Amino acid sequence: MGFSLFLVILAGLAAVAYGIYTTRQVLAAPAGNERMQEIAGAIQEGASAYLTRQYTTIAIVGVIATVLLLIFFRGDFVPAVGFVLGAVLSGAAGFIGMLISVRANVRTTEASRHGLQQGLDIAFKAGAVTGMLVAGLALLGLAVYFALLTGPLGFEEESRRVVNGLISLSLGASLISVFARLGGGIFTKGADVGGDLVGKVEAGIPEDDPRNAATIADNVGDNVGDCAGMAADLFETYVVTIAATMVLASIIFVGLPAEEGSLSAVQRFMLYPLAIGGSCILTSIAGTYFVKLGKGSTNVMGALYKGLIVTGGLSIIALLIVTALVVPFGEEFFMPGVGGEGLKTFTGMSLFWCGIIGLAVTGAIVWVTEYYTGTGFRPVKSVAKASESGHGTNVIQGLAVSMEATAIPAIIIIIGIITAFSLAGLYGIAIAVTTMLALAGMIVALDAFGPVTDNAGGIAEMSELEGSVRDTTDALDAVGNTTKAVTKGYAIGSAGLGALVLFAAYAEDLRYFAANPETYPFFEGIVPDYSLINPYVIVGLFFGGLLPFLFGSLAMQAVGRAASAIVEEVRRQFKEKPGIMDRTEKPDYGRAVNLLTGAAIKEMIVPSLLPILGPIVLYFCVGAVAGTGQALAAVGAMLMGVIITGLFLALSMTAGGGAWDNAKKYIEDGHHGGKGSEAHKAAVTGDTVGDPYKDTAGPAVNPMIKITNIVALLLLAYLASLGA
Amino acid sequence: MGFSLFLVILAGLAAVAYGIYTTRQVLAAPAGNERMQEIAGAIQEGASAYLTRQYTTIAIVGVIATVLLLIFFRGDFVPAVGFVLGAVLSGAAGFIGMLISVRANVRTTEASRHGLQQGLDIAFKAGAVTGMLVAGLALLGLAVYFALLTGPLGFEEESRRVVNGLISLSLGASLISVFARLGGGIFTKGADVGGDLVGKVEAGIPEDDPRNAATIADNVGDNVGDCAGMAADLFETYVVTIAATMVLASIIFVGLPAEEGSLSAVQRFMLYPLAIGGSCILTSIAGTYFVKLGKGSTNVMGALYKGLIVTGGLSIIALLIVTALVVPFGEEFFMPGVGGEGLKTFTGMSLFWCGIIGLAVTGAIVWVTEYYTGTGFRPVKSVAKASESGHGTNVIQGLAVSMEATAIPAIIIIIGIITAFSLAGLYGIAIAVTTMLALAGMIVALDAFGPVTDNAGGIAEMSELEGSVRDTTDALDAVGNTTKAVTKGYAIGSAGLGALVLFAAYAEDLRYFAANPETYPFFEGIVPDYSLINPYVIVGLFFGGLLPFLFGSLAMQAVGRAASAIVEEVRRQFKEKPGIMDRTEKPDYGRAVNLLTGAAIKEMIVPSLLPILGPIVLYFCVGAVAGTGQALAAVGAMLMGVIITGLFLALSMTAGGGAWDNAKKYIEDGHHGGKGSEAHKAAVTGDTVGDPYKDTAGPAVNPMIKITNIVALLLLAYLASLGA
Repeated sequence: MGFSLFLVILAGLAAVAYGIYTTRQVLAAPAGNERMQEIAGAIQEGASAYLTRQYTTIAIVGVIATVLLLIFFRGDFVPAVGFVLGAVLSGAAGFIGMLISVRANVRTTEASRHGLQQGLDIAFKAGAVTGMLVAGLALLGLAVYFALLTGPLGFEEESRRVVNGLISLSLGASLISVFARLGGGIFTKGADVGGDLVGKVEAGIPEDDPRNAATIADNVGDNVGDCAGMAADLFETYVVTIAATMVLASIIFVGLPAEEGSLSAVQRFMLYPLAIGGSCILTSIAGTYFVKLGKGSTNVMGALYKGLIVTGGLSIIALLIVTALVVPFGEEFFMPGVGGEGLKTFTGMSLFWCGIIGLAVTGAIVWVTEYYTGTGFRPVKSVAKASESGHGTNVIQGLAVSMEATAIPAIIIIIGIITAFSLAGLYGIAIAVTTMLALAGMIVALDAFGPVTDNAGGIAEMSELEGSVRDTTDALDAVGNTTKAVTKGYAIGSAGLGALVLFAAYAEDLRYFAANPETYPFFEGIVPDYSLINPYVIVGLFFGGLLPFLFGSLAMQAVGRAASAIVEEVRRQFKEKPGIMDRTEKPDYGRAVNLLTGAAIKEMIVPSLLPILGPIVLYFCVGAVAGTGQALAAVGAMLMGVIITGLFLALSMTAGGGAWDNAKKYIEDGHHGGKGSEAHKAAVTGDTVGDPYKDTAGPAVNPMIKITNIVALLLLAYLASLGA
Repeated sequence: MGFSLFLVILAGLAAVAYGIYTTRQVLAAPAGNERMQEIAGAIQEGASAYLTRQYTTIAIVGVIATVLLLIFFRGDFVPAVGFVLGAVLSGAAGFIGMLISVRANVRTTEASRHGLQQGLDIAFKAGAVTGMLVAGLALLGLAVYFALLTGPLGFEEESRRVVNGLISLSLGASLISVFARLGGGIFTKGADVGGDLVGKVEAGIPEDDPRNAATIADNVGDNVGDCAGMAADLFETYVVTIAATMVLASIIFVGLPAEEGSLSAVQRFMLYPLAIGGSCILTSIAGTYFVKLGKGSTNVMGALYKGLIVTGGLSIIALLIVTALVVPFGEEFFMPGVGGEGLKTFTGMSLFWCGIIGLAVTGAIVWVTEYYTGTGFRPVKSVAKASESGHGTNVIQGLAVSMEATAIPAIIIIIGIITAFSLAGLYGIAIAVTTMLALAGMIVALDAFGPVTDNAGGIAEMSELEGSVRDTTDALDAVGNTTKAVTKGYAIGSAGLGALVLFAAYAEDLRYFAANPETYPFFEGIVPDYSLINPYVIVGLFFGGLLPFLFGSLAMQAVGRAASAIVEEVRRQFKEKPGIMDRTEKPDYGRAVNLLTGAAIKEMIVPSLLPILGPIVLYFCVGAVAGTGQALAAVGAMLMGVIITGLFLALSMTAGGGAWDNAKKYIEDGHHGGKGSEAHKAAVTGDTVGDPYKDTAGPAVNPMIKITNIVALLLLAYLASLGA
């Protein structure tokens, strides 16, 4: 076990090394002229100021949570330390990634003066740093803490304290994630929506015009939302999924005999997800070196996909090797069936195929998202066409597309569940999701590429560089929009499946406690009835179902308020400094950034409390009416309710937002009357609506789903510790 | 049993008698001048033409369905006759209601020349005819068919053939309902959205202007959508809920001993929902006579609520009497617990309280809907305020309100489920919903009042009557908008709860079959596992969850296409007949009506197939992979999935649409710049988006949820008949 874990840790360290090495490469590139650096400096300053304040606020919440964990677990340091570790590493991945991103933007602008390949190179490398840090730090956190707990501290792999440590690590990551997603999302879309309304619509000046006091804030927002926010989101999904898979393994395979001198089944199956993570970090690093334009080609998307495909292909080979080493191919393993009944068998080969299913689901979801958000296909074209008859029909068609876009991903997920389950039961599903997430390094790289190119275009505009530079950055930015949509689809699909693994962990955990009342006296006589004909299960499903709706609504309203505040601020500046419009006076960018910072921090608190308090409130309410057994069943059902409506809402919001965005771009490319036409105005409305949909509410639902599940798991862990 | 059923049938006949008597009163009122009659004639013609074609199409589908039923049930006439009866009565209620409605509109206009009370009187009476026909015919269908089957035909109350008859009756009503809701919704909103876009926005002429070729179609749409569509919807919910309650009673209470000479438990509890329905028809009729303005008062809403409150109050007394007669108060009854385990006891008093819960849920949902869609409260005001910063922010805020509006109704439903269940188990929940629906006559009256007043205003405008008439009809119409929103909230809340009863019937039915394999050999050895930890249950939940999203998307797109077709048609008429604008030429209203008729009929087919084919496809797919037991579990879970996402989608769509509509009205009342301001334009966009949300997709989800459940029940009935 020790040596294998050492190898996993080495893979994690390789990702960090890649990050350091690539960061040096990026920073060594020339940073442009003075004007460019001045603008980039303002963005850096704003982003640092925001993130510092965001993380300070989170730190306060984190300290409170740590103290609560210490109190509830009566001084046990394992949950508290795990929590702090998860939170700090997640914060670090986002913060460092963002620091690179805001330094790479101006260097991308400068490189774009020399050509597309040069611009692509810097921007993608910056994204890759964030990507590898996310995967690397997540894996390191899990592997190192697991190694510490089972090595020097001497806990059994399947012991409660190890499980509690893993769950708390997940909670730390989730807490950062929900705050970062919400706060970042509110900041970025408040700036974007507000800035567009007051600049483009009211004052009639173009996007990224330096006369608009909200421009710097808009660029800051790209970094704190799409870079730091997405990083925290996938860090969390990664940690949570692998941790849940390990917890599941520790319960399902407990007590199976091990041959002398070899690993026990529990050890093998807890190690396996970590090993998959480690090997795929290496394939992701290898893939980054294949992101290059062909000779004379300008197909940026093709270059990015080349890297992704190489990573995917190598991952299949890596998966083969890892499976052969950790779970020998031919050997037959036994596991209890669902709910502890009967025995099922599977082999290493079954698990390998589960991994392939994870990769296939990733590919399929990427493909569907591109269909629904790409300008070349029916959905986006239909939204663009509907813009001809006005704002209303644009929005109607966009909403219709957003709802339609949930169907195929749901069916892909259904097929994934059925096939993985028939191969290797619940653990098979968990391995499919683990493999899906093992590619996170590469996928985050594609996403974090987006804000760098977006900023690069803004800097080119604001520093009034020659038009050809803007053309180059625009070509990069257009691809950035697609990759952002695609990663969102991936993030949500994997989050939905990851949440299912968490739910399975909850159910198995509870079954285990109830089966061992001598150790866990609290669960004496409790037989949770998860059957759909139990009315408390129905109650749980409804209660869980309403949370994503309420959460999404609060997030959208927060963006609306932040945007209104920005509109008023920019209007005020135009009025008080009449010289801004003829460029004799400079707007006060800092005030807009400060204003949004305050708004985002304030607004992120209440919605974040919903998923944290939800399970606890339901537990006590149902418990008071119908007793502990029904309360635990209701909480379990609630988790499923959150997953169902959350998945559909998040899928529809992100796809719809992407479709609106690209319908506007499609019209700007000269269709349906082009820029400035009535259709274009309608499409701008749709884009505005889509902004908080796809960049605030939709993505924030991911961590929200998982935090509900983790809080429920922790509630179980707390109840188990009572009287033990 | 016979005499009690006779009393129930008498109550149903009383509703029909009220309908005939009141129709005469309405038709006796003066029908206005020649111009008014000409316009009303065009609306009558269009509405009849549309409904004739709609029902002809449905009849074709109905004949096919009847033949299929005869084939699948190998010549048994009971399901086929039940199906035809349900379909014909539902169609009759909608058709006759609509015939009165299109004759009452012009009489309301004429009466409004004399005063508000006079206008209110005609319009409400017309609505009440539809309302009483809905409740009366629904009750008659159920009671007469039940009496026939158990009387002259001599089947036992709890026999399969009676159950199959009741389920098929529900299927007939549901089929009409989903077509009528979808077809009517597409027609009315295609006309509304298209007419507004080309008239108000492009040509700059006011609403209901006779120069707009779509105006007559718009008025026709009000009748076929809000009157005939809503009538079919509530007819269906009424029939389905009472039938499901009876089916549940026939399974739960089977075999309980009866005292000599008195009714058996099965007989009592199958009669009880019919008796509640019958008594509440009488209280609804009584309530209609209290709808009157106070002296000198202009509070129309107050007058309507007076009627509703009287009906509610009298219903409590009626419920007491009915319960005392059918289920003596003190007597203790036994029933098996959930899933057939253990015995629970309850008394007549418990059931009485369940009925009160149904009434309380109705009241609470009416109140919440008014909060979210009324101009006096935060949500609508916030949408109006957001309109100041543009189209985009209006839509964002509207979407946020629509999502928020699901939370409290969901919690009300949760509380209703918990309290009713703890009083009298699943049957208690069924009785709560039955009582809720027993008020349908009065509630439909309030709703069907809406299109009459809406039309009355249009006729006043088109026939260029003096402004004071329009003011009076506008006052009536404003209230009509609120009552329409309120009834939609009621329709969805009751549909969601009714669907739960259907789901319970599915589960209990399946348990019963599996427990009696000697009679139902197909179910030999089948133990359906509805537990949430069964992956096929998760698959069913996801598959069910996606159906309302896909269905809603198809409905929205259909409206978009119909509206575009109308825009082109009206544009063409303006171009080909340049005299229309200066009133020297008349537009061709009939073409617009025909065009929409064709579009609505064509577009309603595909979405309607989703809920019909969904359960069958899932049954065969999962069956092929995992066997019949898992397939039946997956189908059960699918029903719950449809209910969950369907309920939230329908709630959010109808509330959001209402909020957008009234935000526009609020601005038109002089807030935020009033009519013609930029805020007003933004609010018009929101209203356009809300139209298909609240009047097509949202309400059509109701029957869609239930049809899925009924098809699943019928699938069980078919499987049970195999080898029997």
